[in-house]
Amino acid sequence: MTPQKSTLDGKVTTNWHERFAERTHNMMSSIIREILKLALQPDIISFAGGMPAAELFLIREFEEACQYVLTHDGVRALQYGTTERYPPLRQYLVEKMKEYDVPAEQENILLVNGSQQALDLIGKIFINPGDVVLTEGPTYLGAIQAFRAYQARFVTVPLDEEGIQTGKLEEALERHPVKFIYVLPNFHNPAGVTMTLERRLKLVELAARYGVFIVEDDPYGELRFEGQDITPLVVLHKENVLYLSTFSKTLSPGIRLGWIVAPSKIIAKLVQAKQGSDLHTSTFVQMVTNDICQRGILRSHVKTIREVYRERRDAMLAAMERHFPPGVTWTRPQGGLFLWVQVPEHIDTTEFLNLALQEKVAFVPGRAFYPDDDGQNAMRLTFATADPERIEEGIKRLERALTRELG
Amino acid sequence: MTPQKSTLDGKVTTNWHERFAERTHNMMSSIIREILKLALQPDIISFAGGMPAAELFLIREFEEACQYVLTHDGVRALQYGTTERYPPLRQYLVEKMKEYDVPAEQENILLVNGSQQALDLIGKIFINPGDVVLTEGPTYLGAIQAFRAYQARFVTVPLDEEGIQTGKLEEALERHPVKFIYVLPNFHNPAGVTMTLERRLKLVELAARYGVFIVEDDPYGELRFEGQDITPLVVLHKENVLYLSTFSKTLSPGIRLGWIVAPSKIIAKLVQAKQGSDLHTSTFVQMVTNDICQRGILRSHVKTIREVYRERRDAMLAAMERHFPPGVTWTRPQGGLFLWVQVPEHIDTTEFLNLALQEKVAFVPGRAFYPDDDGQNAMRLTFATADPERIEEGIKRLERALTRELG
Repeated sequence: MTPQKSTLDGKVTTNWHERFAERTHNMMSSIIREILKLALQPDIISFAGGMPAAELFLIREFEEACQYVLTHDGVRALQYGTTERYPPLRQYLVEKMKEYDVPAEQENILLVNGSQQALDLIGKIFINPGDVVLTEGPTYLGAIQAFRAYQARFVTVPLDEEGIQTGKLEEALERHPVKFIYVLPNFHNPAGVTMTLERRLKLVELAARYGVFIVEDDPYGELRFEGQDITPLVVLHKENVLYLSTFSKTLSPGIRLGWIVAPSKIIAKLVQAKQGSDLHTSTFVQMVTNDICQRGILRSHVKTIREVYRERRDAMLAAMERHFPPGVTWTRPQGGLFLWVQVPEHIDTTEFLNLALQEKVAFVPGRAFYPDDDGQNAMRLTFATADPERIEEGIKRLERALTRELG
Repeated sequence: MTPQKSTLDGKVTTNWHERFAERTHNMMSSIIREILKLALQPDIISFAGGMPAAELFLIREFEEACQYVLTHDGVRALQYGTTERYPPLRQYLVEKMKEYDVPAEQENILLVNGSQQALDLIGKIFINPGDVVLTEGPTYLGAIQAFRAYQARFVTVPLDEEGIQTGKLEEALERHPVKFIYVLPNFHNPAGVTMTLERRLKLVELAARYGVFIVEDDPYGELRFEGQDITPLVVLHKENVLYLSTFSKTLSPGIRLGWIVAPSKIIAKLVQAKQGSDLHTSTFVQMVTNDICQRGILRSHVKTIREVYRERRDAMLAAMERHFPPGVTWTRPQGGLFLWVQVPEHIDTTEFLNLALQEKVAFVPGRAFYPDDDGQNAMRLTFATADPERIEEGIKRLERALTRELG
């Protein structure tokens, strides 16, 4: 190394702030991620993060799959590959989608770094600055982050227990030049509600009538505890729907692996965007996941997860019933990880969180799930992370904080 | 599942084309990636892809690291994590950077899905549509792809054997409102040249004088075959330089892991952008890589790679000396994977590639490495992928094609 001292540091200073692109003015760190840092303290019972129950991870099976993949096909696992990536896993997903009546071939599937990258790539290929994205209110905060980075404007249509309110949706479509509709029909994050078949039919009909396409985000679809699966939107109008799902809630979020199902010409455009974004998703991770899937382990594992989460949902609903004061209401999800609590209107849950943290319990304030600062008197709780005993204790703590707040 | 036939497919058709965002009009599939598909035929000797030599992959060591990580810390490997991600690997990189006199703490380092994602995130936080990015001519085609997706305009400054021509650089900075300068100082892809210390000093001085920051892309810096390392730009002016590197050329490209070194306020903004893009890079991959690094395996492995690639470079240079007709010139890289060949002006290498493929040899046409369709009579060859015998045979085939072309 040629020895050479820094010649210019301290003499010439860069004003970085004025160099950032306009789109960064809308970027903010997710509130959830900041809260997660607080909630990591071991004495806090956290209902905040959407973290799958870690004690259910298939660690041993991952070990076996890594060994198998590296022993039998190590060079392929570690070398560059195509952007669409690992064909056997795409074929597995073709078959898996068929179980849900979702028609797809390999050319309709792109593997991505979790659903979050799907949202980013969709933003990248569709959103011009100022374009209107219509979402449910509340909606997944990661979608707000992803689309906001491309300078989308947002229009929200409220949810009820049957999903998006299609009457208000029609009014919104009439009034705004919407680019696409983003919805989570199953076990909504954060609301915990599921869209009925009637609403789904109406939604695809309205979308088609107004010439607007739909992004259907389905990370939790496999985690139904009771009742019957309801037809996905992509089955109702596959030419007009992009469908997203992920291995994060069934296998592991830390590996970062999800997929998009879309018409082949959309996949081709997404592939171009992904080439520029990161070339391709880790081949090694895809091959290990494929190995676990092909052994049929995931299928039985999902049954276990469902049982555990159902028990926890029941524990949380029962604890809230027992402990929460009047004036507090909540949703009763048929699956997934989350439920949505509404407190009296004069409580602002963002401020109330401080009180809750004093009582050593955490949640995510409702405001995080609206692009327009709505949701002040709501909060999202996850029942997936803690066992029934901790859930009971956590809900008691939340009740104490609520009682203090209500005076 | 509620049985439900597709209600609208075939009746209502979406016109996707008119829905794509403006930025997609500039997106193209990389020529390289299309050629790679052709070059996969086993009878073709490919000097096209920048694929590290697969026979050197540390497959056994990966197996051991996977087993260790999953056995000892499996939950952490498979759960969600923070966006900046795995602190021990960031600490390893802090130490590694010190060996190159690059000053950094953990807060200056962000782990990403290969350098390609670094380029994407830099585009995302800095480039407004129409902003000017100054690159070397030729330059890395993945950078053109990444920045073009944010609607950058490009200004190129030619390279010679000493790197970017700083006289012409000054003219360009005088004439154009440049946002940032993107350079590959070591063993340039595709040109194979290395920027001298004099040029580096001049470059950072000019950048500071014109109020322009620098993106220093250094994927090959560790692969020096001879001579002394030259001080990185980031050492010369760390407040004004973003430095990128990757595990792709030393450990494995298929795992998709790289890093950015930058002032902490830039890292904070990149973290916000990455949250919206994909939350974080696979924790599992980071922990496995960290395990391999901490064992000191990578350090000795890099020595092996250097020896093998040096032998291959020598083989290619000797073969070209022996076989190529007059009027053909090439660079003599001191490291890395690539060299750059210039053929007589009347040959267009994009067309000539067809002739070469008939002779069962592949390369990447020079045009792929210019944003403005320059480089018609140049080509990039990699010496890293084939062994000396195949290199000799491949160069002979290329000579046959050249002789046919020259008549």
